[in-house]
Amino acid sequence: MPSVKPVVGIDLGGTNVQIGVVSPDKKVVGSAKRKTKPDEGRDAVLTRIAEGIEEACAAAKMKVSELCGVGIGAPGAIDPETGVVLEAVNLRWNEVPLAKLLSEKVKQPVFVDNDVNVAVYGENKLGAGENARDLLGVWLGTGIGGGLILNGELYYGTFKTAGEIGHTILFPGIPLGSRSLEHNCSRSAVVDRIVRLIKANRKSVIPSMVDGDLSEVKSKTVAKAYQMGDELTIQVVDHAADLIGIGIANMVTMLSLGRVVLGGGLTEALGEPLVDRVKKSVRANVFPDKCKQVKVVGTKLLDDAGVLGAALIAWERMK
Amino acid sequence: MPSVKPVVGIDLGGTNVQIGVVSPDKKVVGSAKRKTKPDEGRDAVLTRIAEGIEEACAAAKMKVSELCGVGIGAPGAIDPETGVVLEAVNLRWNEVPLAKLLSEKVKQPVFVDNDVNVAVYGENKLGAGENARDLLGVWLGTGIGGGLILNGELYYGTFKTAGEIGHTILFPGIPLGSRSLEHNCSRSAVVDRIVRLIKANRKSVIPSMVDGDLSEVKSKTVAKAYQMGDELTIQVVDHAADLIGIGIANMVTMLSLGRVVLGGGLTEALGEPLVDRVKKSVRANVFPDKCKQVKVVGTKLLDDAGVLGAALIAWERMK
Repeated sequence: MPSVKPVVGIDLGGTNVQIGVVSPDKKVVGSAKRKTKPDEGRDAVLTRIAEGIEEACAAAKMKVSELCGVGIGAPGAIDPETGVVLEAVNLRWNEVPLAKLLSEKVKQPVFVDNDVNVAVYGENKLGAGENARDLLGVWLGTGIGGGLILNGELYYGTFKTAGEIGHTILFPGIPLGSRSLEHNCSRSAVVDRIVRLIKANRKSVIPSMVDGDLSEVKSKTVAKAYQMGDELTIQVVDHAADLIGIGIANMVTMLSLGRVVLGGGLTEALGEPLVDRVKKSVRANVFPDKCKQVKVVGTKLLDDAGVLGAALIAWERMK
Repeated sequence: MPSVKPVVGIDLGGTNVQIGVVSPDKKVVGSAKRKTKPDEGRDAVLTRIAEGIEEACAAAKMKVSELCGVGIGAPGAIDPETGVVLEAVNLRWNEVPLAKLLSEKVKQPVFVDNDVNVAVYGENKLGAGENARDLLGVWLGTGIGGGLILNGELYYGTFKTAGEIGHTILFPGIPLGSRSLEHNCSRSAVVDRIVRLIKANRKSVIPSMVDGDLSEVKSKTVAKAYQMGDELTIQVVDHAADLIGIGIANMVTMLSLGRVVLGGGLTEALGEPLVDRVKKSVRANVFPDKCKQVKVVGTKLLDDAGVLGAALIAWERMK
């Protein structure tokens, strides 16, 4: 990364936009946050992002004109070469030329990639990926996202949609809507299963933790119950971790991957016990035995992975 | 491919070795075949290969010294850079420096790669792959092998074992030995299932086709019964094809592949009906919808894929 000027890295989600000025030595030196509010339309979202860039620069005691570029991780299918958001369900965007539109507003070159790709890239360069040559990142949250680095570079594939491990089928024969890795192992799936079993009269500490309001069960609730030794929670989480391990093992077998990084809200809340359980399942299910050497680790950059990764991608593309 | 001299391409299997002299315009102009007989030891296998090279050159009316190199596709895990066969169960070989040993015998540079990689490479350059950028080859035979071309190049992965789609888990929760794609959908699995059902008194034309000796059921028997409309055979083959489609769909979803080539004995015997059924299943099970554009086709080079692919790899590596 030869540039001596800072860039802005942006993690654009369906709910929030995280914006950070990143210094050439890879530190977040100023940041801002905005609600995305995609319902207000594309131009309103872009205006809020531009304001957030101004605010983050002000926090870093600099002007927007002193940046050398902007990197954005956006949800959905992206064309990284043109910076067009091809389809982003969360934003209700189709064929939005994000790089071009934002560049006109902020007078800076803008680079766009998929949000999970960006986070995986950040982990690989600055976090738990440690520059692995062949790496899969799996983000466990409301859904399950993934990103691939193959031969040291982000891999996109023919339709630029690669990495969708959450949508691989875990249980052929099970009805549509229940058979993918995401349907069975995302945070939503884990919470739904715990709630269903509690309603079916299984004993658990969870109802007492949410004053009986089971709609309030979050990643943190699950993590706390798990740490307290709650039998139902441990059973459901461990089963999900074993299945996540099988889904990942299939990709390690297919791609002979040296490293897997787990991230996302559920991973951050549950921490090492989840990572260890997934790692055991991956190693038990790969082929051939050589692949048991795969390293399975948790995210190191946590919430900053998106902002830092987006910044790195901006520098990389300007080379 | 700038070379004006022919090379020898070799398809080294656990039972047979196919050897062909390939002219610079990519035609097989002389060939030979040997039994592998791995039980007689490594040196005997190498001697038979060297004799086969002499015979193929004689058939092409040339001397071995007029070649510019030799390419080999070998079963198992290979280090393509050093030409070492790391582990080949069918050959009972571990850490065999095949390129070095054969090069000493034939006084030609020798290049080695995995047998399925070689065939997939051949299909991509000269056959059904049509230079696709991101392509998966799936070879359906006694087992199920696979090879990947990503970003236009053979993909090996960190442990050099990539492509093992046959060993991905199709049914988590089913006992070890019954849950992989290969366990359920290889030619052996299909034949075993048909035989088991016949023994359980299901009606089929197959017993009359093999004079009651069910140990004689081969790919061709299955193909003929299928073409004759045998209900049991159609049921078993179609179910296997649907499952193969799901296993492949997961890789298309993950890798955003533009093309899939099906090869191997079972594919060649059953032909278009199998390819069409797999294609339908792939398209029904990929994510996102863009990936439904994936092309699923049968091998074009058939038996020559290995010899031609090995020759191409030799030329490619000498560039």
